[in-house]
Amino acid sequence: MAKETLESHDEDPSEVPAAVRSSWVPYVRAKLGFRNYWYPALFEHELDGGVAKGVRLLGENVLLRRVGDRVAAVQDRCLHRGVRFSRKPECYTPDTITCWYHGFTYSLLDGKLVDILTEPGSKMIGKIGIKTYPVTVAKGIVFVFVGDGDPPELAADVPPGFLDADRAVEGLRDEVKSNWRIGAENGFDTTHIYIHRDSPLIGGNRLMLPIGLVPVNKQGIETHTDKDPRGVFDAMAQNYMPVFEGTIRGERVVESRGARGEKMVAGSVSIWMPGALKVDPFPDPAIVQFEWYVPIDVGTHMYWRVLGKRVQSEIEAATFRDEFHSLWKTLALRGFNDLDIWAREGMQEFYASDDAWAEEHLFKPDACIVEWRKLASRYNRGLQPVP
Amino acid sequence: MAKETLESHDEDPSEVPAAVRSSWVPYVRAKLGFRNYWYPALFEHELDGGVAKGVRLLGENVLLRRVGDRVAAVQDRCLHRGVRFSRKPECYTPDTITCWYHGFTYSLLDGKLVDILTEPGSKMIGKIGIKTYPVTVAKGIVFVFVGDGDPPELAADVPPGFLDADRAVEGLRDEVKSNWRIGAENGFDTTHIYIHRDSPLIGGNRLMLPIGLVPVNKQGIETHTDKDPRGVFDAMAQNYMPVFEGTIRGERVVESRGARGEKMVAGSVSIWMPGALKVDPFPDPAIVQFEWYVPIDVGTHMYWRVLGKRVQSEIEAATFRDEFHSLWKTLALRGFNDLDIWAREGMQEFYASDDAWAEEHLFKPDACIVEWRKLASRYNRGLQPVP
Amino acid sequence: MAKETLESHDEDPSEVPAAVRSSWVPYVRAKLGFRNYWYPALFEHELDGGVAKGVRLLGENVLLRRVGDRVAAVQDRCLHRGVRFSRKPECYTPDTITCWYHGFTYSLLDGKLVDILTEPGSKMIGKIGIKTYPVTVAKGIVFVFVGDGDPPELAADVPPGFLDADRAVEGLRDEVKSNWRIGAENGFDTTHIYIHRDSPLIGGNRLMLPIGLVPVNKQGIETHTDKDPRGVFDAMAQNYMPVFEGTIRGERVVESRGARGEKMVAGSVSIWMPGALKVDPFPDPAIVQFEWYVPIDVGTHMYWRVLGKRVQSEIEAATFRDEFHSLWKTLALRGFNDLDIWAREGMQEFYASDDAWAEEHLFKPDACIVEWRKLASRYNRGLQPVP
Repeated sequence: MAKETLESHDEDPSEVPAAVRSSWVPYVRAKLGFRNYWYPALFEHELDGGVAKGVRLLGENVLLRRVGDRVAAVQDRCLHRGVRFSRKPECYTPDTITCWYHGFTYSLLDGKLVDILTEPGSKMIGKIGIKTYPVTVAKGIVFVFVGDGDPPELAADVPPGFLDADRAVEGLRDEVKSNWRIGAENGFDTTHIYIHRDSPLIGGNRLMLPIGLVPVNKQGIETHTDKDPRGVFDAMAQNYMPVFEGTIRGERVVESRGARGEKMVAGSVSIWMPGALKVDPFPDPAIVQFEWYVPIDVGTHMYWRVLGKRVQSEIEAATFRDEFHSLWKTLALRGFNDLDIWAREGMQEFYASDDAWAEEHLFKPDACIVEWRKLASRYNRGLQPVP
Repeated sequence: MAKETLESHDEDPSEVPAAVRSSWVPYVRAKLGFRNYWYPALFEHELDGGVAKGVRLLGENVLLRRVGDRVAAVQDRCLHRGVRFSRKPECYTPDTITCWYHGFTYSLLDGKLVDILTEPGSKMIGKIGIKTYPVTVAKGIVFVFVGDGDPPELAADVPPGFLDADRAVEGLRDEVKSNWRIGAENGFDTTHIYIHRDSPLIGGNRLMLPIGLVPVNKQGIETHTDKDPRGVFDAMAQNYMPVFEGTIRGERVVESRGARGEKMVAGSVSIWMPGALKVDPFPDPAIVQFEWYVPIDVGTHMYWRVLGKRVQSEIEAATFRDEFHSLWKTLALRGFNDLDIWAREGMQEFYASDDAWAEEHLFKPDACIVEWRKLASRYNRGLQPVP
Repeated sequence: MAKETLESHDEDPSEVPAAVRSSWVPYVRAKLGFRNYWYPALFEHELDGGVAKGVRLLGENVLLRRVGDRVAAVQDRCLHRGVRFSRKPECYTPDTITCWYHGFTYSLLDGKLVDILTEPGSKMIGKIGIKTYPVTVAKGIVFVFVGDGDPPELAADVPPGFLDADRAVEGLRDEVKSNWRIGAENGFDTTHIYIHRDSPLIGGNRLMLPIGLVPVNKQGIETHTDKDPRGVFDAMAQNYMPVFEGTIRGERVVESRGARGEKMVAGSVSIWMPGALKVDPFPDPAIVQFEWYVPIDVGTHMYWRVLGKRVQSEIEAATFRDEFHSLWKTLALRGFNDLDIWAREGMQEFYASDDAWAEEHLFKPDACIVEWRKLASRYNRGLQPVP
């Protein structure tokens, strides 16, 4: 794994030189995210019972349905008059989708027009087709490749370790009214933990959690750029000084409730193209939290919160599933991270304007965000066009 | 009646040549409809009790009120400060509208400023006036001429036979969130009957109704272009092959519930400038259905559903009125055609972009729609400007 | 006090010459109001208990909080990531605001970055700061100077007499969905009283109130331009002919309910930069009504309705406060002026287009509005830029 150290920007990013700012111009333009990557689309169980379901990924409407032992994904728009199949999905055979409007029927596997129910024998049959999307299912999540050409292995586009065979995964997803980059930066931002200082999770799980983290040396942030997945790795436990008290003019005004916690969490936080987070461990020393911020439209993203735990057996996996639903979902994901949703929606007004990226004033703990912007700008496989 | 046959386009309109597509450019630009035509504005009974009522036609605000034995229509905007009279109509004399804001009072008959209640003797009185609209009432419907200059007879702008003396008419109107052209094309589209295949109307009225209709020869569609009303006439009973079963790869997946119906309906469907449909007969062999799709704004139209039946006496007319309210309104108009509203709203996302008209893939049964676009492009009296 | 008479425009402003219309071009451009003026932001009691509160003035977000015996106002946007403090104001010391996101803490008095709770000792501390706004509290209202440089005395920007030592003041404020100029013109418009002719206030307080007022000579309107506040003064009692009956073609159709009232009100109405009204007296011979129309955004303004009464003691002031809450608030402000809100929202559709200011047809009683537009165009201290 290659390592690059922080050399291209000042220690204090509030004085980020224009040259560095210009290095993240592609990121500023990536309002709809990066093309040619795998993105989580649905939890696999959402397709139970053979339903066809529409999702919006990077501004594209995609229809998903299980076909045999795999999942198929096609464009969610009939070629004929442009309506979405998902408004009223009609699936008469295991591998087709029929448009509710005139009965245009497409293969879910190759997208070809198979039949038109209202015009048997139409010359168009077999000649035209809808776009299909590569799909991979892993860890109970349906991933869709949004792009052109052949996709890489899924492992290239998810955080390292996510696919480990012994990792059990549980999670949820929610639509958030902010651009996806705000989601990603809020997640990777080491110091946004300030907003979580009163979280019931801290006392409930006896966590050690400061109110802020200040980088103490330039070696704290590694950028992984020599192979996929590309990402920025922030070894917080080693290179940051935790802040447990907030003072104003020397007077203590805020104190971490997690200063005396027993459990250490978030030893490292890393972000990976095309926008996936790994917090290791969190919210418990035995669990890793993964997150995705998938662009829906320019002003909304799908927020994926996923917990992964290493298990040795099906029984341990089932136990983790119970634990997730009875404890972590409420105490950690909703109880802790819902505040992140609130924070992102508060940033959207400012960052809706492209000027924001030049007018902001970053501070030292934002160094990791600067690295992420630079990496995403330089190593992405393409920008999703904004209509 | 002149007849033109289908020669200017391919049998399979999915391969509509660019030359043909370019022939309907005016239609693509007609987002707010065609100017200099009669349009239905209100049912006459909506003006009962002397109320003044505002409607929006092709983007223009119009105020209507009964004056003696006629109906007057004027622009629904005071010259003074631009407010709509209809926000709080004040009618102090039989033939005037007074603005609620400062008492500017206009003649409903010629639009002239008659008086200003708050400035008696103003020099402006008699010198300025608001636009008036020609009005004709027929079959219980108030028609307004949206355009400039002298209007033609109403008969020039409604489907043939609509005004026949022995025809009793009942109906309703609803605002639909789609462009008017989508309404018109959905109505004239022979094969959209696919969406209606489960309608209670089919069994309830024992109708013979296929799931699709495929044109079998080029003579099926007549274009009437030598005199008003201009229109496209589709003799479905004679030139189409009905489809009663839908198959996918030879397997029957959908079956018409109307395959064994006793009553033949929709023997012909025709559409007439500026956008009025006639389905003859429907929803019963003794009834003809007329429809209008009147532009309100770019993204909305007023959908008129009107049934007409030939009657020999007032008693028969009253019987039809009862029949309409107790049976057809629910079983046919709401029960059957509300699904058309749903379908049109599903097309709006795609057709909101002008690119849609080039990206769509028409199929053989859309030949009638192609003729309609060409006719409307060539024979219209003017485009309504889009602000 | 200097006086200018009405010479630059025709007696009948419906024929306002192009030269005059061009003289109010700056006013037409002032969609977000005029910069470098004092505007009311909050009632002082809204800051009780030490709360920090955000308001939007002329498109700028401002945060207000009491600091000791004064009120401080700063930009309601953190320099770091652009969020509004007011989403969750954190005030840990008497004179600071801390951003809820990362603990950036600013002095409310000079705007300087005092501390960052999550990065003690940051180099940014003391070096950057947020904009502060001059604040003056008078008559229980917090005024904010929206502009650049040193502000004038508050007296320069409020209607004459408002600050008189013996004047007790009570009022309320409401957001209205129209541009601020529509609010100002509706208030200053002498003849909009037509809409109030059925107001319960007329009978309830036995007011003499015509349905309209026609200027009878050019001397009725004085423009005060030699010193601040600049304004237009309309001596209605002396220079206008009241209209108590509305007639159409000689027939009486509307009659003032206030024709036989005992109490004379609104003897003069004046408007002052940057957009404050004074109706003297109203709604009672012993009371003066002041109004402000403060731009929020292009399509909304804050409507301030304030009543002032001369009092000789604290007891008289308390009595007026009781009177306001038990009587005037409901009978006059809500009962009478809520209709003005309704009227302004009815004008917004038309005046949202810049063309409206050329297409309107002003009449003789609008002479005062013409003078206001000219004065505001010529004597303003700057236009607030529209983003």
